[in-house]
Amino acid sequence: MEENGIDYVIIGPTSNMFYLTGFSEEQMERPLLLIVGKGEAYFLASKIYEEQLSSLGFPVFSYNDGEDPYSKLKIEKGSSIAVDDQLWSKFTVEIANTFLPRKLLSSSPLMSTLRVRKDENEVSIMKEGLRIAEDSFLSFLNRVEEEAEECMLAKRLEEEFYLRGVEPSFRPIVTSGPNASMPHLRCTQRKVKRGDAIVVDFGVKYRGYSTDTTRVISIGNPSQEVKMVYSLILEAQEKAEEAIEGMKGKEIDNLARSIIKRNGFGSRFIHRTGHGIGIDVHENPYISQDSEEIIERGMTFTVEPGIYLQGKFGVRIEDMVIMDSKARKMNTLEKDIFIV
Amino acid sequence: MEENGIDYVIIGPTSNMFYLTGFSEEQMERPLLLIVGKGEAYFLASKIYEEQLSSLGFPVFSYNDGEDPYSKLKIEKGSSIAVDDQLWSKFTVEIANTFLPRKLLSSSPLMSTLRVRKDENEVSIMKEGLRIAEDSFLSFLNRVEEEAEECMLAKRLEEEFYLRGVEPSFRPIVTSGPNASMPHLRCTQRKVKRGDAIVVDFGVKYRGYSTDTTRVISIGNPSQEVKMVYSLILEAQEKAEEAIEGMKGKEIDNLARSIIKRNGFGSRFIHRTGHGIGIDVHENPYISQDSEEIIERGMTFTVEPGIYLQGKFGVRIEDMVIMDSKARKMNTLEKDIFIV
Repeated sequence: MEENGIDYVIIGPTSNMFYLTGFSEEQMERPLLLIVGKGEAYFLASKIYEEQLSSLGFPVFSYNDGEDPYSKLKIEKGSSIAVDDQLWSKFTVEIANTFLPRKLLSSSPLMSTLRVRKDENEVSIMKEGLRIAEDSFLSFLNRVEEEAEECMLAKRLEEEFYLRGVEPSFRPIVTSGPNASMPHLRCTQRKVKRGDAIVVDFGVKYRGYSTDTTRVISIGNPSQEVKMVYSLILEAQEKAEEAIEGMKGKEIDNLARSIIKRNGFGSRFIHRTGHGIGIDVHENPYISQDSEEIIERGMTFTVEPGIYLQGKFGVRIEDMVIMDSKARKMNTLEKDIFIV
Repeated sequence: MEENGIDYVIIGPTSNMFYLTGFSEEQMERPLLLIVGKGEAYFLASKIYEEQLSSLGFPVFSYNDGEDPYSKLKIEKGSSIAVDDQLWSKFTVEIANTFLPRKLLSSSPLMSTLRVRKDENEVSIMKEGLRIAEDSFLSFLNRVEEEAEECMLAKRLEEEFYLRGVEPSFRPIVTSGPNASMPHLRCTQRKVKRGDAIVVDFGVKYRGYSTDTTRVISIGNPSQEVKMVYSLILEAQEKAEEAIEGMKGKEIDNLARSIIKRNGFGSRFIHRTGHGIGIDVHENPYISQDSEEIIERGMTFTVEPGIYLQGKFGVRIEDMVIMDSKARKMNTLEKDIFIV
């Protein structure tokens, strides 16, 4: 904190609080904060959480509904305050207007230093999560049929997670035909058709950690054009998986992007090549065209180039990798189009 | 906005964006904002959302991964900016450090003016949501048995939602015996026992709107002490449901609180009497000891007093009401302890 010129870090009930304390809770309107600074760390929480938080090893300053929570905080006015990226702005605005910080910063650079390299325990949890996610996907394949609505298919995939005792790490994406040119559309009432490229982007939350994988399914054979674009994306994806320790994020991005550009689809690859993954589905490091971040051992991230042809179709292939001396694939699913 | 001295309102992919545009998306690290101000309203979004957002009737300013998103915004430096309460702080910090606002405010007073009184369509959606939630609860009752773990019971309740095609509006609370003295504990591995007061706090999300209800279950007869405390809470709860149009939040709170206090449990009622509900599970108006808010026709809120005896048990009863000339109950479930 000193190096970063930060007097206080304020963490909300987010992935950071889970990382630091093991405690997780949905974010709501009552401030539930972990304050770190000036040699202390304590919770600020509504009285309704007092008993629950008492066993976590930090002092708990509690307030009643109707009391001013911030009057309990020991924060000097005019300090430099770093706030949790995912903390609701309501709290940041209230804190800023109460304590008039000299500087208001993101806690992300600091928290990322702690979280970005995964230890063995974290890696084994994520691998087990992937095993469950992939097993779910393989069962799901048997339930993909012509004329089923995309959202019905998404629901069937979620059912497979549910049956295995896990939750989705994000609302799964099941898009087909022209819908798949929208990389973040979740699903629609469109009925999938024979020959559609169906993009399925899915992950589970297992013991607090996330997975994220994308595969393409087709009912019967896809068109020659889909196959051609798919094989290009597969080449680009596998090239980026050859990343080695010490490369910058932008260099890894370029491994995939240069292949796509060279084949004339550069303007149709409308996102970065990947993102870090851990407790959050998206976290540091980012594998994008401007990323100067050095990718070190223990960092886990996705490799997921895509090509999106508006009005026609879209394809994307996504694996998770962990950097060792070179990137090692964490997924085990095969990468060809799954023909069902 | 003028009345509130606000130049720009910045909305994230939250309940406010859903209310204003019908669009919903999980919040992630790329700014996805609706900017309202100086006679304009437009989206700022990553290129990956461009096609998806194009049909919503607002201009979309899109950026590529790696570009500075904020360079696309037409915000004058030194303005007064109101930000969405649930917008991640990452974006508020970035916007504050980019545009150096004269004032940084919450958009909540403004948005609440729009959202706090529900129209007929909203009310009928919420009532249908309640019907589904209550039907789920009644089926769930058949699946409550001795020695089942609290979290297993919570899962069974979620299954009932799932079977009816809806999602929980929050992670359900199923706490038993001494665990129920923690009002926001979700569940543990504790096995429920004969005679436990089991507090079940649950709701569903239906067509974008939330429900929230609490009932107490007991396997066989609960103790005399539980019965006595329960009948007190029931009296307090029903008293607060007699609220009439024009009362302040704190007056409604006091209807329940004064009965609990008079009976010596004032210090064991450790939260407010209720909260508004709509798209969000918790929203304006709040029914708390310090709430000066006038409760008007069309406002929907919960009435949920509770008593929490540490190391022993807890009870709470929660209904949703809508204010007409007087409060009208939206729930139809009976309110006695459900003996199974």
